[in-house]
Parts: sequence; C-alpha cells; structure tokens
Amino acid sequence: MKALVTDLYELAMSYVYFKNGMKDNIAYFDVFYRSNPDNGGYVIACGLESIIDYINNFKFEEDDIKFLRDKGNYSEDFLDYLRNLRFTGDLYSVKEGTVIFPQEPVITVKAPLIEAQLLETYLLMLFNHQSLIATKANRIVRAAKDRSVTEFGARRAHGEDAAMLGTRAAYIGGCIGTSVVEAEKKYGIKSYGTMAHSYVQSFKNEYEAFKTFALSYPNGSSFLIDTYDVLNSGLPNAIRVFKEVLEPMGIKNGSVRIDSGDLSYLSNEVRKVLDKEGLEYVKIMVTNSLDEYAISEMLQNGADVDLFGVGERLITSKSSAVLDGVYKLSALESNGVITPLMKVSASPVKTTNPGPKKVYRIYDKETGKAEADLICTIDEEIDETKPLTIFDPVYTYKRKTFASFILRELLEPIFIDGKQVYKSPNIHEIRSYALKEVDTLWMEVLRYNYPHEYYVDLSDKLYTLKNELINKNSHD
Amino acid sequence: MKALVTDLYELAMSYVYFKNGMKDNIAYFDVFYRSNPDNGGYVIACGLESIIDYINNFKFEEDDIKFLRDKGNYSEDFLDYLRNLRFTGDLYSVKEGTVIFPQEPVITVKAPLIEAQLLETYLLMLFNHQSLIATKANRIVRAAKDRSVTEFGARRAHGEDAAMLGTRAAYIGGCIGTSVVEAEKKYGIKSYGTMAHSYVQSFKNEYEAFKTFALSYPNGSSFLIDTYDVLNSGLPNAIRVFKEVLEPMGIKNGSVRIDSGDLSYLSNEVRKVLDKEGLEYVKIMVTNSLDEYAISEMLQNGADVDLFGVGERLITSKSSAVLDGVYKLSALESNGVITPLMKVSASPVKTTNPGPKKVYRIYDKETGKAEADLICTIDEEIDETKPLTIFDPVYTYKRKTFASFILRELLEPIFIDGKQVYKSPNIHEIRSYALKEVDTLWMEVLRYNYPHEYYVDLSDKLYTLKNELINKNSHD
Repeated sequence: MKALVTDLYELAMSYVYFKNGMKDNIAYFDVFYRSNPDNGGYVIACGLESIIDYINNFKFEEDDIKFLRDKGNYSEDFLDYLRNLRFTGDLYSVKEGTVIFPQEPVITVKAPLIEAQLLETYLLMLFNHQSLIATKANRIVRAAKDRSVTEFGARRAHGEDAAMLGTRAAYIGGCIGTSVVEAEKKYGIKSYGTMAHSYVQSFKNEYEAFKTFALSYPNGSSFLIDTYDVLNSGLPNAIRVFKEVLEPMGIKNGSVRIDSGDLSYLSNEVRKVLDKEGLEYVKIMVTNSLDEYAISEMLQNGADVDLFGVGERLITSKSSAVLDGVYKLSALESNGVITPLMKVSASPVKTTNPGPKKVYRIYDKETGKAEADLICTIDEEIDETKPLTIFDPVYTYKRKTFASFILRELLEPIFIDGKQVYKSPNIHEIRSYALKEVDTLWMEVLRYNYPHEYYVDLSDKLYTLKNELINKNSHD
Repeated sequence: MKALVTDLYELAMSYVYFKNGMKDNIAYFDVFYRSNPDNGGYVIACGLESIIDYINNFKFEEDDIKFLRDKGNYSEDFLDYLRNLRFTGDLYSVKEGTVIFPQEPVITVKAPLIEAQLLETYLLMLFNHQSLIATKANRIVRAAKDRSVTEFGARRAHGEDAAMLGTRAAYIGGCIGTSVVEAEKKYGIKSYGTMAHSYVQSFKNEYEAFKTFALSYPNGSSFLIDTYDVLNSGLPNAIRVFKEVLEPMGIKNGSVRIDSGDLSYLSNEVRKVLDKEGLEYVKIMVTNSLDEYAISEMLQNGADVDLFGVGERLITSKSSAVLDGVYKLSALESNGVITPLMKVSASPVKTTNPGPKKVYRIYDKETGKAEADLICTIDEEIDETKPLTIFDPVYTYKRKTFASFILRELLEPIFIDGKQVYKSPNIHEIRSYALKEVDTLWMEVLRYNYPHEYYVDLSDKLYTLKNELINKNSHD
C-alpha cells in the first residue's frame, strides 16, 4: 500500500541481504528516542494504531514492483520476494498514551531481517510525529490547568496527515476537541468552531452578523469580538445579542472569542463588563499563537479565560518540532543462536543497549507514583517481594533501593508471527489512560523548566552484557 | 473527497450564509503571509499543484453528507446544496517557485461566498506547509554553495504528506534528490540512499559489509564509515574496498558518509587520508542534524564536504516550523456592486488591503534584479515608458523612483469560472524557475541575518482607498 514511502536505503540494504543469503536471519530492532522535546521531562507515546494499520496493510503493489524493475537495480527473484512480502514477525510496544522516557525501548521488532528493516522509515515517522504532538498537547493542557483546550491548527499543519493524525494525538494528549470536521467523523473527536473575521465583515454591521449567527445556532453561540474593536464594538454588540436575542429565548449560555490584541488585558476588561451586565454565564475564549508558555504567563497574570483555542504552535510543536526516535539493531539470530549487538559511538548517548530486552516500570506501592524504569534482558524476572536496588548506568555510585514497590512490564505483544494480537482501545479510553499516566509522574518530572530527569536504569545483567560488548569491540 | 478536512467554522458560517440568502454573493479573498520564516528575506511559493488538485476534486461525498445530517445542525436543503457544490469561481496565483514577500496577495479567489469560504483551511494548509519547506530547502541549499544537498528527513516528518509533499517542496527549493522512493515514483525526483548502521552490524565485520555492498552496487557505492570508528576502522575498510574490489573492476567513483562526531574535523582528516591514498575521486558526504547554520559554519571552517544529506531540520523546518499564511476577505460583490472591505486592527500589521487587487514586480532593466513589488487595484495599468515612483505605505516619505524598469504581473489565472486554465510545468521546470527567481534577488535580501526588507508598496490608488476605509471605519 505505502511500501515505497520509505528511504531508498531500506531497499538497498534489503537487496544485499537477499542476494547474500541473509534474508532469513532474524533481526531484533528497538525504537527509542534520545531527548525530550522542549527540554521537558517525558513523552506521551502515540501512533501505535497507525503502526498497526501500516503493518496490516504492508504490501508492494504491482505498480511498485514495476517501478522498481524499471529503476533497474534489482533482480527478478528479489522483486518476486517483495511482491509476496508480508510482515510475519513479532512487534511489542508500549500502549498509546503511555508516558515514556529517553533511551528505553518503546517498540521492539523481531522479524526476518528484510521485513524488520523495511518497517523502519514509516514506523519511525508515525511514532515520532504523533508522540511529539501528543506530548506538546499535554504540556499545553497542563498549563491551562482546569480550562479546556481545543486544537485549532489545521491551516498551519504540515499537510493533511499532520492535521488529522496531529489532532488525534492532541486529543490523546488532553485537548477536548478539534477544529477539523473529518476528525469528528473519522475518530469521534468533537469538533468546535464558529466564525471568522470574514463572516463578521460579510454583514452590514457586527450586530447583524452576531444576531444572524445566534438565530442559526442559539445554543452555545460564540461571537468573535475583535473584527473592529473589542471593547467599543465587538463586546457591546455581543452583549446586545445575548440580552436581546438569546435571553428572551430562554438561552443563557455562549461565549465570546478574542483573537488579537493583549489577550490577558482584554480578557479582564471583557469579564468585568460581562459580569456588570449580569452575563456571568458567558465564557471567554482566546486564540492567537498560544502555547504552554503563553498560557502559563496569562494565567499567572490573572487572565479571565475559560477556553483556549491553540493552533500553529501545537499542531507543529513549533518550539520543538522534532522527536528524535530511532530504530536500532540490538541482535541477530541465525540458526537459533542470538548474537547481541550494539553500536559503540564516540558520543556515549549514541551507544545503544544490546540484545532482546524488556522494560519494567517501578511504582511506589504507597503513592502509586512512577519512580524509575529498569531495562532488563528479555529473560530476566524480578522478585517483587525482595528489595530492589537500581543504579545509574553512567554514574554507577548513584543507587536507589525500593522496598515496597509494584512492577509493570511496559512492552505488550502487538503482533506475534505476523498476526495482530492486540486490539486498540477506543480513542477516548486512550486519552483517559494518557492523562492517568501523566498523573503517575511526580511534579518534579512534570516541571517545564529543568525537570527532574526520570531514572531509566539498566539491570545488572544488561549492564554487564553492555560492558562486555564495549570491551570486546574496542579490542577487535 | 477531502471536503470535511476543514475547520468546523467554515461549515458553520456557510450554513448561515445559505439560510440568509447570501450564498450567491461573490466574495474576494486574498492569501498572503505576514512574516518570513527564520527572519529571512523571502519565501518561495509552493503548493499550487496540490491546490489545483484539491479544487478539481472538491466534493462532499455521500458519507460526508450523512455524517453532517447525523450531526444534526443542518437543514436538508443545505445538505443538498453541499452535495452538488463544486468550485465555480476564479483563482489567481503566483506560479510555484515564485519568490514572494510579506503582505502581498499571492493567491486570490473570487467565487460565490460559500465556495470561497470552504476552500480556506485546506488551501492555507497546502500553501503554508509547502512554501515553508521550499523556502527552508533553498536557505540550506544556498548555504551549501556549489555542493549538493539531498532531503533525508522522512522518518521525522509530520506524517506521510509531510514526507511526500515536503520532499517535493525541498526539491523545488533546490535539493537534488530525496531519500523517499515513492517520491521518485510519483514525482520523478531521484532517490538516494545506501546503508544504515544496522547494515554494517549485520555482517561479521565492517570490511565484509562494505565489500558485499560494493559487489551489489559497484557504481556510486557510498560507505557509512562511523559505525565503529571513522578514522581507525570505517575509513581504512572503505579504502580497502575502493582499492581491492572496485578499482580492479575499473570503477573509480563512490563516496563515504559520516553521520556522527565532529563532522568538520572528520571530513578534513578523511579527505587527507583519501588523497594520500590516491582516492581523490572519492567524495565525502555528511549527515546528522544539519541546516543552513550548521552547513555555513562547517564550510567557513574549511570542511571538506562534497554532499550534504539533510533530514529533520529541513523536513520540519525545525528552527521556524510555521508559515503564517492567512486568507482574508477583501471585497463582496452583490448585484454587480463590489464593496471593498478591510479588517482594521489594533495591530497595524493585521490591517488588510481592501478590494480586488493585482501585484506588479518591478525589475531593473539593466541588472534584471527585482527591486520592489507594487500592490495595485485590479483596474490599474502602469505605463512602463514613464518613470515610476513608489512610496512606503507606513513611512510615506520613503520614496523611490524607477526610470528604467520592466514590470511583471505576478498573479496568473489558474481557474476561471471553475475551469482550470493553467497547466503546471513539470517539477524540474518548477525547480529551475524557483532557482532563477532567487537569482533575481539582491544579495542583501538573501542574507541570513537581518536581510534587507524587500519593498512591497501600495499604489497611490490602493493607498487612498485603504485610508478612506480606515477613516470611514473609525467614524462608524
């Protein structure tokens, strides 16, 4: 279906594997990311549903095969192999909405080498993009405290997928809705929106524009009050419509939206006038280049805002537009023998963790808070009845012992032998789960500035294996 | 087809227009943007081909109609109207690849109000995203001077459209190719790519990995030399393959790629060794978080690089991830009477230019360089045989007179009465055109830091109209 939406090198390598008898070797790959966007403390994993869909539909179509044949690099037996290629391997992943941290495997793939290699580009794209936006949305939603945030950025999104999958991720991260109608149709995310400045300009005056709108949508009318002058025109006209049109119909709800000027100051002035006029029920929405920083400052300054509409800075994650997830080979299995592998690098952060692995999250039994993650080799079991001591893999003298804890394994089976064994929850369940996940983090990890670095440590066994391989490598 | 991939407010407004006898009013909308990304001096317009495709296929499908009916806000006659809605209006646009500047109309739409309104979200999304990436690519390509730049960012793109349309835009902006195979199939952009670290790790040693690759792809082999150690392992192994495998086959081309470490230093060291070994023909490619700033600095420091592979910072325009294009109503026509409209705003930059307009670019006759753009009312003609004086619309004492100049009208008819009247050039022609366009700019406009602000002025007539409307508005 989209098999050619991949980097050429995936095909180039695959062909060499095919021609050199390596195609049936089993490869183990880990997806992990290296640093938190916005120098934050965590990421919300997102994109698994798209990944499942991609794998289930993975297939080279006849016109793909023809294109590759015309390109001229590949033999007919390889093209035949591609024609029949489907994913037959295993894939484990954290659930969508799980909070995750740098360096730990969040997706692992075990599959014949070529199958595993060909997933890399598209799978990373889905994971990186959607996790980035879910995380940004969660930062913004947290800044808004108990006020609602809707995602309004489609016009600045990087294409249709960015708008659609981005708004889905934003909902999972905590937004209450979207501007995009198709997202309501396809995903069941409630869509919001009322009028543009062009609407107000299309009437002979602002009052007529608001009144006509109110008659079409009496319940929950929202009037955009900054087309001419917020305090001298937009607000008085909106108030007239609330009092002269809607209240006589028995309707006492609705909002005004401010899209320019000093949003904080204007919100205070608008609130004062609305309250004086007995319109305490009218809510104030603001829009215009908002993000977690702007919203935090507005609320600190006492802005009277009930609803935030957030556009370009959310849908592009403008202040930090890249999540750096990678896909790294951790082992090869040939004739039943597994060889753990790692990439040694001059930059220690680029040194990978070898071998098939699993990840435990350690929760404090009393508070339920997440304390640390522990990356283990795949065959390790931890005895929850005994105290558990973990140590920093770089500064190994930094140790921590847990006496009373609960363990949870993060990676769940999604595909086994190419068959999907996991059913995604619905989007509302994913969103609830994500928000509960964030609640398991200490405030110190959630902080925007210099958050505490959540512990992601290696088990004794993995640490030992890694050091053996480093030493072996440097003597090769 | 994708009619519901739009903001809800477009539909909400449309319904009011429909119910209040306004649907046949003719609306004039302008697309313009407000500020150059990365504080640069220009933008390269991109996305027109996608816009044409969107408009030609614009249609509410039966399941869209059903969804809207179930949503419950809309009357059956409105749903019938939507079912039969096609674009019947006019659209004018600058050609893809044109250099454009803030505040000037780059697309104008004249169409029945609802048709024009419903285009807003998707059209802006296409224009904003693709122009952003074409511009970023051009900045990066210019920094690389005469070295080639390929686009390698699919895995960090914001979804599939961002990868595909983004790499198309990057090509138009001056990249020589892409990593994405589907982009070669669909657009004819040459795809590039060789091997990942996982490839090198999949062999018993690095030499075998390179040798096996060279035997599959003898021409233009590129060896990734940083899996273990660039200078002590990767480079010597690549050299052995060039000398022991490829040269005996009579092949003297290829490259090495460095993806980590101090790229500048390593490129110098690698160059020295290659040259000493008589491998002057081997090119050096570098990749790893590059952009125009990193590349400029590397080349200033004397890096020996022939090819740049640029990923995440290009495909997301990371340092400036939003182009702020907007869609603003400039006039309404009812019963043959055109009423020019403008949005007055507390922020002068948000004050729009009223009425149907056209844009002239003024070129110096001798140098061929672009000197200024002049926004005029639609009915103005300029006499090229007489000196032309223009003035800054804010600081009106700033005047400039051109004695010897050539004028070019920027907005070309794309759709007339709903029929496409323009045929897009092929992508290679668009790319050549874009690069020639950039060549018409003075170096001062092209500068990365504090570029000269290209003049975008208003004609006398438009300036007068605008001021009349401002004065009228403030007395209403």
